[in-house]
Amino acid sequence: MTILEGIRGPRDLKALNEAQLVELAEEIRQFLIHAVARTGGHLGPNLGVVELTVALHRVFESPADRILWDTGHQAYVHKLLTGRQDFSKLRSKGGLSGYPSREESVHDVIENSHASTVLGWADGLAKANQVLGRPDHVVAVIGDGALTGGMAWEALNNIAAEDRPLIIVVNDNERSYAPTIGGLADHLATLRTTDGYERFLAWGKEVLQRTPVVGQPLYESLHGAKKGLKDAVAPQGMFEDLGLKYVGPIDGHDVAAVESALRRAKRFHGPVLVHCLTEKGRGYPFAEQDEADRFHAVAAMDPLTCKPLAAAGRPSWTSVFGDEMVRIGADRPDVVALTAAMLHPVGLTAFAEAYPDRVWDVGIAEQHGAVSAAGLATGGLHPVFAVYATFLNRAFDQVLMDVALHRCGVTFVLDRAGVTGSDGPSHNGMWDMSILQVVPGLRIAAPRDAVQLRAQLREAVAVDDAPTVVRFPKESVGPEYPALERVGGLDVLHRDDGSEVLIVSVGALAGVCLATVELLRERGVRCTVVDPRWVKPVDPALPPLAALHSLVAVVEDNSRAGGVGSAVGRALRDASCDVPLRTFGIPARFLAHARRSEALADIGLTPVEIAGRISAALTQAGPK
Amino acid sequence: MTILEGIRGPRDLKALNEAQLVELAEEIRQFLIHAVARTGGHLGPNLGVVELTVALHRVFESPADRILWDTGHQAYVHKLLTGRQDFSKLRSKGGLSGYPSREESVHDVIENSHASTVLGWADGLAKANQVLGRPDHVVAVIGDGALTGGMAWEALNNIAAEDRPLIIVVNDNERSYAPTIGGLADHLATLRTTDGYERFLAWGKEVLQRTPVVGQPLYESLHGAKKGLKDAVAPQGMFEDLGLKYVGPIDGHDVAAVESALRRAKRFHGPVLVHCLTEKGRGYPFAEQDEADRFHAVAAMDPLTCKPLAAAGRPSWTSVFGDEMVRIGADRPDVVALTAAMLHPVGLTAFAEAYPDRVWDVGIAEQHGAVSAAGLATGGLHPVFAVYATFLNRAFDQVLMDVALHRCGVTFVLDRAGVTGSDGPSHNGMWDMSILQVVPGLRIAAPRDAVQLRAQLREAVAVDDAPTVVRFPKESVGPEYPALERVGGLDVLHRDDGSEVLIVSVGALAGVCLATVELLRERGVRCTVVDPRWVKPVDPALPPLAALHSLVAVVEDNSRAGGVGSAVGRALRDASCDVPLRTFGIPARFLAHARRSEALADIGLTPVEIAGRISAALTQAGPK
Repeated sequence: MTILEGIRGPRDLKALNEAQLVELAEEIRQFLIHAVARTGGHLGPNLGVVELTVALHRVFESPADRILWDTGHQAYVHKLLTGRQDFSKLRSKGGLSGYPSREESVHDVIENSHASTVLGWADGLAKANQVLGRPDHVVAVIGDGALTGGMAWEALNNIAAEDRPLIIVVNDNERSYAPTIGGLADHLATLRTTDGYERFLAWGKEVLQRTPVVGQPLYESLHGAKKGLKDAVAPQGMFEDLGLKYVGPIDGHDVAAVESALRRAKRFHGPVLVHCLTEKGRGYPFAEQDEADRFHAVAAMDPLTCKPLAAAGRPSWTSVFGDEMVRIGADRPDVVALTAAMLHPVGLTAFAEAYPDRVWDVGIAEQHGAVSAAGLATGGLHPVFAVYATFLNRAFDQVLMDVALHRCGVTFVLDRAGVTGSDGPSHNGMWDMSILQVVPGLRIAAPRDAVQLRAQLREAVAVDDAPTVVRFPKESVGPEYPALERVGGLDVLHRDDGSEVLIVSVGALAGVCLATVELLRERGVRCTVVDPRWVKPVDPALPPLAALHSLVAVVEDNSRAGGVGSAVGRALRDASCDVPLRTFGIPARFLAHARRSEALADIGLTPVEIAGRISAALTQAGPK
Repeated sequence: MTILEGIRGPRDLKALNEAQLVELAEEIRQFLIHAVARTGGHLGPNLGVVELTVALHRVFESPADRILWDTGHQAYVHKLLTGRQDFSKLRSKGGLSGYPSREESVHDVIENSHASTVLGWADGLAKANQVLGRPDHVVAVIGDGALTGGMAWEALNNIAAEDRPLIIVVNDNERSYAPTIGGLADHLATLRTTDGYERFLAWGKEVLQRTPVVGQPLYESLHGAKKGLKDAVAPQGMFEDLGLKYVGPIDGHDVAAVESALRRAKRFHGPVLVHCLTEKGRGYPFAEQDEADRFHAVAAMDPLTCKPLAAAGRPSWTSVFGDEMVRIGADRPDVVALTAAMLHPVGLTAFAEAYPDRVWDVGIAEQHGAVSAAGLATGGLHPVFAVYATFLNRAFDQVLMDVALHRCGVTFVLDRAGVTGSDGPSHNGMWDMSILQVVPGLRIAAPRDAVQLRAQLREAVAVDDAPTVVRFPKESVGPEYPALERVGGLDVLHRDDGSEVLIVSVGALAGVCLATVELLRERGVRCTVVDPRWVKPVDPALPPLAALHSLVAVVEDNSRAGGVGSAVGRALRDASCDVPLRTFGIPARFLAHARRSEALADIGLTPVEIAGRISAALTQAGPK
């Protein structure tokens, strides 16, 4: 039995000696490399926190003490040490989640994969401990990348002002997905390259005590300047200026050093920041040598060669967008691009290479992405902010109040819209077409294929007095669905003579809608399928067309609450068109991790299910 | 003619000498006191920035140089100096806006009244200047309170990392609405009380140059520690650590000193922060002596006595909430309260006095309010986060991903929900019942009167496994509307025998709905009016009741897009109930400033308009 296999819970860690800990760390790394190679998942971040996680569970008493992980994709080691060693179905339906999960373990607290939240959670938990008189500790692990997010600042400002015990571990690997940007990153770099305050102070004390000035040792007269001297050689100034005790920098791959720092922090009984230096991808040479993202997340692969197990498929939606952006950039020198710490994942790498002065990584800071886009637009440029759909939720207020209220020509490109699947509830992009419905003037495009994506992106960047949104799903783009004709702004994808049912197909669900038509045909039901292309505002051609039918069905890869179906319903009512309507989309609940196809089947977004419900509704509605 | 009357634009300021500037400042103060006393408005913040605004317009060339105001309620002086001296209809329909307005002037850029946005705007505008090769300056004025918001941090991190010219003026009056909180406030206080770095350095140089250490002057050997020494005596460390040049602190009421600092900053050609100390309410003794909020915003009053012109009216929704919170606090020791820098405006003053250890002001940091509430709930408490409805938009992602996903019992109390009126488009709370519809598990209460507010607040804090929302409008609470009976969860407020129309009345619009019934009765239309009390989820009793009617009408003080009307439509469809539906609410556009009653009339939320449209729809729908 390996040492790892003997670890059933955190308590088992405490009996290990230093040599065993080194061996355990090596076992964990080998386990991670082989397990994640089999299923795919977050590899680099977990290889970076092996020793840190071991030390945390040796020093603190989870679950009474709360060990909190920001973002959560680095919690695999934590899972291994808290009784979860079956990684065979990691991120698959029925298997372990790729993030902490309260259902899996009492040791897990935060399931949300959106960055920069952990300090806020920690502040709340520490306040609860104080009010209820509990002596337990709260430890928040946050990456240097996540510190660029505004929520981290709001929390630091609150935490630092009071003397509640709370330990912040900065897991500083100089990266979020890609290298971390901004003034804070520069400051952390200064801290990292510091030679050590204690060594300097020892030297200073020795020299200066021998140097009398105005009747007293210079050391004494400079004592008031001690903090200043400390800043000069180990300029932790920023955190200490806020009121946080700073411990570090610590070698995050030395269990004993990390433990010692954590024990000091634990004794302090106030807010303290422990600065740990770690290496993303540590111990896996392929990852260590990958400058792009240190194997942040990988698909299933051969661990020895790093070759992906699946053959390269069709191009992804992301790559089509990235390609078209480069072409638009050539035609339009005023088009600039923004990303929130995800240049590569959102497909802007080629644009950045072609136009390096026209792209900005703003950090994990969606709010800043949106509000600075309003400034860029007001200054005469047309920004394209490419972001995962789920993360735009962070910038809702800025889209509404900064971009839309000021009628700024800003294009938001929402990647991973709709059901994403394996990353679980907080990665699904199933809210955008609902919450953005309320934004005056904003227009939403949901392209159904690669041709439409290219065309609609160009239409979007041509709008200079209102925000536009182009949204598309994860994974590979499907076949092309040519239109038979265009009626108003509606692309007619299918039309049966004397059709009774009008199906409004939204975006990438065109294939599902056309397959539904085939099933309905077998039941003798005749249909028309239209793709509005721009789903907000509702095209004026829709209500008159709807009025010719016995039933209207809207099919969308978005929450049913307030989505395109609701908007179509409102448009019909406003046109005094009371034809029965049925809406198909994502129910108002959080979806567990599963493949996209599995998740769509679970929620009934399949041709069989939709056809069945349409024909039932049609029977009830009767002929027109 | 006064000097002020001679100022038609910024250019006219530049000819004035120092004595004239002092006189101008006094004239502006007298103007503000008398003008704002007449109409009501933001007084304290504007009295604090008289000299600062004059200096800004003397040093920079607006509108080519962009002078940007965070939050915007302190832009009255800016209006006076840019050709807008008719304050007679300030904040009234057709008069000057209480905030910057692009429609009013080319000198105005940001209209959004939500705090902490200005640095993001400035970053975008400076980037646009860089890309387009424009030499113009960008100057952002931000209060110390607004620096507690996460967006400010995200922007500072971006601004500091590059060398684009950008001037940040921190208007430090130690307050947002109330005194600013947090570690940052403590840091700014340290900066304020500093004796001056230059003086110390001069002394140090003199002493140390005479002190040889290891063969060279100690001063030289300490030269590397210069920044550290500077931090020790003038610890601007935090901003300089980030990479911002720091100038200050400056007396913000000395025009010459502010001008001199701004000119230095202008020459610097990189990111620079000018720290100005100002006094909110300066020059108006009543304001200077008001420790609560220094007359942040006042109602119309007699400027000599400070007595309000209007008699005290009925109690406000806010005061009813505040009163009930104190009672709940006595019954439930686990109930705690949160505010984002607005303890008094949201009615938590009495709770804070009664239970000082159970209330936290988190700063202008709605995201932190929501996420720390998730932590508090997970830690065993029941937090009530009281916030203006419009500001909850800032925390949408946290409500969804932290509170709801983790099934935390957190109650959000949304004050100023619906049309607020005089503060203009960005203060209206017209989005909450739409965007919150997508949040799984979240329940929304819209009480119709004071009795219901007290009852529903108690029902809300009794829910411990899901977020709850209680929302109510601005201004005074209306009369009580007793229910005739309760059907399922629906309060029946009115029932005609054989009623054809079912009116679903949401919250404070009960009076409007009952008046609509009177008008419809005159036309021979019989109605039932129900108040669902909890508008999310839709009560199961609603669809069967709807099926008995020829028409359903939903009346709500919220965006029509995705609001309660949409939710009712979806519930009816899901119950295969295809009775015609009409929804009345706020159209999907931004509303200009006006009184609440004027704004409601403008958008057709009046009994006459609703009755007319219901009877037209009924004629079309025909009998059941």
